Amino acid sequence: MNELLDELEDMIREERLTELRRAFDDLNVGDIVDFLERLGVKDRAVAFRLLSKGVAVEAFDLLDQALQSEIIEGLKDAEVAHYFESLDPDDRVRLMDEMPASVARRMLRHLDPRERSLTNIVLGYPNGTIGRQMSPEFVAIPEHFSVAQALEKVSKAGDDAETLYTLPVVDHGRLLKGVVSLRDLVSSAGEALVVDLMREADSVDADHDAEDAARMCADRKHLAVPVTDSEHRVVGIFTVDDALDILERAESEDAARHGGAEPLNRPYLSTPVLQIMRSRVVWLLVLALGAALTVQVLDVFEGTIEAMVVLSLFVPLLIGTGGNTGNQAATTVVRALALGDVGTRDVFKVLWREVRVGMTLGATIGVLGFLVAGLFYGWDIGTVIGLTLFSICTLAASAGGLMPLLGKKLGADPAVFANPFISTFVDATGLIVYFMIARTVLGI
Amino acid sequence: MNELLDELEDMIREERLTELRRAFDDLNVGDIVDFLERLGVKDRAVAFRLLSKGVAVEAFDLLDQALQSEIIEGLKDAEVAHYFESLDPDDRVRLMDEMPASVARRMLRHLDPRERSLTNIVLGYPNGTIGRQMSPEFVAIPEHFSVAQALEKVSKAGDDAETLYTLPVVDHGRLLKGVVSLRDLVSSAGEALVVDLMREADSVDADHDAEDAARMCADRKHLAVPVTDSEHRVVGIFTVDDALDILERAESEDAARHGGAEPLNRPYLSTPVLQIMRSRVVWLLVLALGAALTVQVLDVFEGTIEAMVVLSLFVPLLIGTGGNTGNQAATTVVRALALGDVGTRDVFKVLWREVRVGMTLGATIGVLGFLVAGLFYGWDIGTVIGLTLFSICTLAASAGGLMPLLGKKLGADPAVFANPFISTFVDATGLIVYFMIARTVLGI
Repeated sequence: MNELLDELEDMIREERLTELRRAFDDLNVGDIVDFLERLGVKDRAVAFRLLSKGVAVEAFDLLDQALQSEIIEGLKDAEVAHYFESLDPDDRVRLMDEMPASVARRMLRHLDPRERSLTNIVLGYPNGTIGRQMSPEFVAIPEHFSVAQALEKVSKAGDDAETLYTLPVVDHGRLLKGVVSLRDLVSSAGEALVVDLMREADSVDADHDAEDAARMCADRKHLAVPVTDSEHRVVGIFTVDDALDILERAESEDAARHGGAEPLNRPYLSTPVLQIMRSRVVWLLVLALGAALTVQVLDVFEGTIEAMVVLSLFVPLLIGTGGNTGNQAATTVVRALALGDVGTRDVFKVLWREVRVGMTLGATIGVLGFLVAGLFYGWDIGTVIGLTLFSICTLAASAGGLMPLLGKKLGADPAVFANPFISTFVDATGLIVYFMIARTVLGI
Repeated sequence: MNELLDELEDMIREERLTELRRAFDDLNVGDIVDFLERLGVKDRAVAFRLLSKGVAVEAFDLLDQALQSEIIEGLKDAEVAHYFESLDPDDRVRLMDEMPASVARRMLRHLDPRERSLTNIVLGYPNGTIGRQMSPEFVAIPEHFSVAQALEKVSKAGDDAETLYTLPVVDHGRLLKGVVSLRDLVSSAGEALVVDLMREADSVDADHDAEDAARMCADRKHLAVPVTDSEHRVVGIFTVDDALDILERAESEDAARHGGAEPLNRPYLSTPVLQIMRSRVVWLLVLALGAALTVQVLDVFEGTIEAMVVLSLFVPLLIGTGGNTGNQAATTVVRALALGDVGTRDVFKVLWREVRVGMTLGATIGVLGFLVAGLFYGWDIGTVIGLTLFSICTLAASAGGLMPLLGKKLGADPAVFANPFISTFVDATGLIVYFMIARTVLGI
């Protein structure tokens, strides 16, 4: 498979396009998408045009929104309308969010009235809510239906509905009463009543946070979850594959910010170098600004260092260990927040756990530091190093556990508030602790 | 909701168990699971026993394997058998993997013959393969069936099959020919032929890597994927909710190792402090050992520092910036590997990108460093700092991009080889670069 992809890349580089078109015939859509995701903008546009119409539509649907948007920009208006119309309303809105507003509006105008009104329903909900990610095309079953009636309705629904596997059951006022699965319908006698088969529904409000809703769908293993308005009327449905998209995006974001960069939101190899650079440079400068604090702290203690240069040898080790301890704690708590295992109200529980973890870690590594440093540089220095390691670990674990919760409380991304800043914070405070302990123990 | 959970915790702490049992009646299973995941081992055992039988089975199914295993350990053999039998074969195997081998074997012996043989099929595949995560309970449709015959077979399949929504289509020798969706079956006329409705199947070999297979299922938006043996006979199926479990576990693992710790594989608040400490201490010691290298490097350059103490002020800033740049690159590449956007064969592409990104970042931050350090500490020092920042950023971005690929190539977790070690590596080499440049420019 891998060699095949490399060969296809050679074909496009060497402009052997007839050969490439023939090669596409032997690939399934998923493989073609993998291939498109590795190409730069221009090559991708060329390759995309070689696809047969049906395959192109399917492949377009599976691409990242950022790449869809680039392809759209390279097409003529009539072609654009074709691909745009082939998307589900929720996918269409996600693509529109990627594009310049003027282009998005023009494309919306070209849609047929039915599709346009469905798209407008989804557009009516703010960014970041599940309403913006749901599909307004669902099949609702009236609660007084028999199984036969329900199956009849399902079989007529045709291709438009987002899913037929989880069906909201509603009363006369479209109020959600429960859900019934197609699986239960096909396994039951035709005269059985839907009301006897239906189960209590986990539903979400359309204004609810999208990531939260996606996590609930995944945790509770639902294939689809009905979305309701404030009066509990069904307005849409969202499916587990949308939940997967949302969670994958959120996890890419967490991972990137954890590493001190903005997410690329597109495949790495297809991203221009300058865009990668831009995703990192601001973070790097902000963190360097924070690190400038350490220069000032050391400036204050320059006299102490001059009196005892050996103290400077341990600076990277000490702040490195502090940074690592802080990172460990922050990572654990960011992940627990993302999974919904802890919330901001758990701040004291988290603090108390991390203080204890930090102290046990600090004691272990402090004793080792005391012994090793003492052996090589004398027991005075050993005492300073041991005490500093203990203090820094305790401090770093507590701060690392608290920072993500603080970030969440302030409405920011917990991952932003956590790892990149924890190092800066621990570096500066750790150095102060170090030199205070050194001055006291060594009497400088 | 949150306040309710707190109130429930109060009830269990104050042993108001009748009240708790009544409160459970108003909650749905998902909420009960959220509650159980916040409790310690003993409280969880108490709360679990208060659940009605049906709810207990459903809740047990949704719990993490680590927590299932703890609950099992607190139950009598007869009860154990009940919960164990209620699980699907694939979930059962995952639970067995969590438990001591002797307990697992004893429980296996208590199963009825049919369930035991199904479980043994899954147990026959090695850990980490998709065969170990699939369900052997699927409904296969012979290719010559009509829609009516297929629906008849589906409706008789009953509760056992893992899914009825994606149905493998097979020939006489059980060879996989394609898949047909229940959706297409119910929307078609009864006399239509399955062979005309079926689509080409994305399938995976049972020996295939589980995470890879899960990623494919998610990327291509399949609800289920047939699993085949080496002769392309269908042996099982795995569903998108299993894929979600696998990906979530992989992402928790990546996140934890990225932060320099082992994954907890269980909810944070339910994990004993000592277990959290153990998940971190080995990493911390290994990293500290690596950091001891910096002490030695600085020891070598002690003369240079003594001649010019001001050089020591910039150590945390320089190695911090190097670490940040390396982290950014490593994080991007680890994530791209996890998503399948790059592979080990892309090593030169990645290196060439990261060299360019590192040089542009280094030039930007180097010029700034030159100006600021020059202004405050003289242009000599400014030159040293500027040049060092440029070199370190280039070095760190390249190393950060390569490390995860190297890890993957060596068969290790890319996240292990990336972020925690990148800092250590950049710290030590960065210091050498720094003092070499300083000696040359300043003529010490």
